[in-house]
Amino acid sequence: MGVVVDLDRKRDKKPSIDALVALTEEDIQKVNRLIMERMQSDVALIPQLAAHLIAAGGKRLRPMITLAAARMCGYEGDRHHGLAACIEFIHTATLLHDDVVDESELRRGKESANSIWGNKASVLVGDFLFSRSFELMTADGSLQVLAILSRASSVLAEGEVLQLITANDTETGEATYLDVISSKTAQLFAAAARIGAVVADRPAAEEEALETFGMNLGIAFQLIDDMLDYSAKQATLGKTVGDDFFDGKITLPVILAFRRGNDEERAFWRRTLEDMDQNDGDLEYARALMEKHGALRDTVERARHYGSIARDALGIFKDGPDKAALIEAVDFCIERAF
Amino acid sequence: MGVVVDLDRKRDKKPSIDALVALTEEDIQKVNRLIMERMQSDVALIPQLAAHLIAAGGKRLRPMITLAAARMCGYEGDRHHGLAACIEFIHTATLLHDDVVDESELRRGKESANSIWGNKASVLVGDFLFSRSFELMTADGSLQVLAILSRASSVLAEGEVLQLITANDTETGEATYLDVISSKTAQLFAAAARIGAVVADRPAAEEEALETFGMNLGIAFQLIDDMLDYSAKQATLGKTVGDDFFDGKITLPVILAFRRGNDEERAFWRRTLEDMDQNDGDLEYARALMEKHGALRDTVERARHYGSIARDALGIFKDGPDKAALIEAVDFCIERAF
Repeated sequence: MGVVVDLDRKRDKKPSIDALVALTEEDIQKVNRLIMERMQSDVALIPQLAAHLIAAGGKRLRPMITLAAARMCGYEGDRHHGLAACIEFIHTATLLHDDVVDESELRRGKESANSIWGNKASVLVGDFLFSRSFELMTADGSLQVLAILSRASSVLAEGEVLQLITANDTETGEATYLDVISSKTAQLFAAAARIGAVVADRPAAEEEALETFGMNLGIAFQLIDDMLDYSAKQATLGKTVGDDFFDGKITLPVILAFRRGNDEERAFWRRTLEDMDQNDGDLEYARALMEKHGALRDTVERARHYGSIARDALGIFKDGPDKAALIEAVDFCIERAF
Repeated sequence: MGVVVDLDRKRDKKPSIDALVALTEEDIQKVNRLIMERMQSDVALIPQLAAHLIAAGGKRLRPMITLAAARMCGYEGDRHHGLAACIEFIHTATLLHDDVVDESELRRGKESANSIWGNKASVLVGDFLFSRSFELMTADGSLQVLAILSRASSVLAEGEVLQLITANDTETGEATYLDVISSKTAQLFAAAARIGAVVADRPAAEEEALETFGMNLGIAFQLIDDMLDYSAKQATLGKTVGDDFFDGKITLPVILAFRRGNDEERAFWRRTLEDMDQNDGDLEYARALMEKHGALRDTVERARHYGSIARDALGIFKDGPDKAALIEAVDFCIERAF
């Protein structure tokens, strides 16, 4: 009977990260304390600027993944708190540098750090958080963790450079786009998940499974992010629509619409995204072309594919609340599209 | 008799880093090969941009210090090559971010990376080199080295932020200035030197001595750099004079001239460096005020003080060519003022 109720509830309720949040709540508080502690500096601008971004929140999705993965692996120590903080530091440093690179004025609905304190401070405080993260990792003392996270950081930077190169290039294909998002986004999700098995000292197969989980969850997450940037849903959430369009970024919705379009439509994409000659109404027309060619719908379909791989990767772990929460997080990352 | 000849030679010859270069020549070639190898990436822009800066050279002073310090400590392995490459990577990442922060158009007499490839690429390739450096360190496998270099990187970033804050603030005192240069420059020299003792597994007293050597050499080095920015010597070397003045940076020559100046002179410093209201002839007048108050001369005097501490720190090591070369490097860093 319990099963019937569960199924009913699933049908009623949209997937959410509430279960993941609830399960990791106590741990996340410890992670937050560590973050606040370790971002301190005698140079007052550093904690000020870092707090603006870190305290403002964000979902803490990456640290939650580490915490839940460690729990699922039966870990009972407290190293995962410090390592989850490391991952959030790397993520935050990346956001600071991203905002400089993208010349963003908003981040998480607030004025971005670079628009308040300037690009210079954002670059340097990003460097500080990044270094601090490696200090924290060194204090943890696992060379295996250091190898995973230093590698993830390099690949992440490579992905950011690749994204910069492909910007404004409408010839960019889906394979290159996948390279970009695997590197700049999914790699850190993969590392976050894998570390759960590493701290719990689990066999290589479980590390690998969690890496696959994180990688594919990260790809699905970024696909939906890129889709939302053109979607009506995003507009109803009070977020801005069209940032990628205005930046000339080549994301999957554009790639699909470009490849499925006729000559006239391709000329439109070249004018707006390559020549960056954008006029009133262009974003609306871009969205209409995506609608016409099913580009947003199929971006979600692609995300479902990676989501399935992520879910299946957890197949080797015993059922339980942590595993269920991680799987629901995959569903959430995709279903937030609607 | 040998001693007499040596003394004569010393009197004849200006101190140089030739001895250090000669002693570390073979090792530096190995370091250079590692650098070229480890800055590769499938993302072609990364090695292109990195090569522009790294291959262009610079003196490789920091890696040479690690190599000579390791030799002086009797080290016979090859770990110091990888670690010297790490230090050069961190230094290069910092230069890339510095040029973005300073909006520099020239670096080492060539067009700077940010003026060729843009600020965005410089920020991201800097991040890549920084991450790569931690990958290399992790491969070396010493948690002690990781602790020293991750700490040095954090402090370095703190120093850069502090420098940013003190820019345009003519009230900045000598103590704060010393904090800035100790953090942003000397910390990495200190780490570079200390690692020589760490790889050779020498006792704590020798680690500490090398750290003191590097720290004080680094301070002297930066003092002379800041002095040269206002000096006629720099102009004869074909380098630009006045970069710090045009950036509104508060360095020791300014601090001394400001503190020793009268009301009218202080008004000049406030107008040019705080309000950044600079006219033709202002740099020349700034240099005249420094001359009047002995600000450049006394900046060199301060550098001599730190140079002496650096030299004395090596007192506990046995005499030999490596020690002699390191000591001559201190003299060189100071005497290049003339």
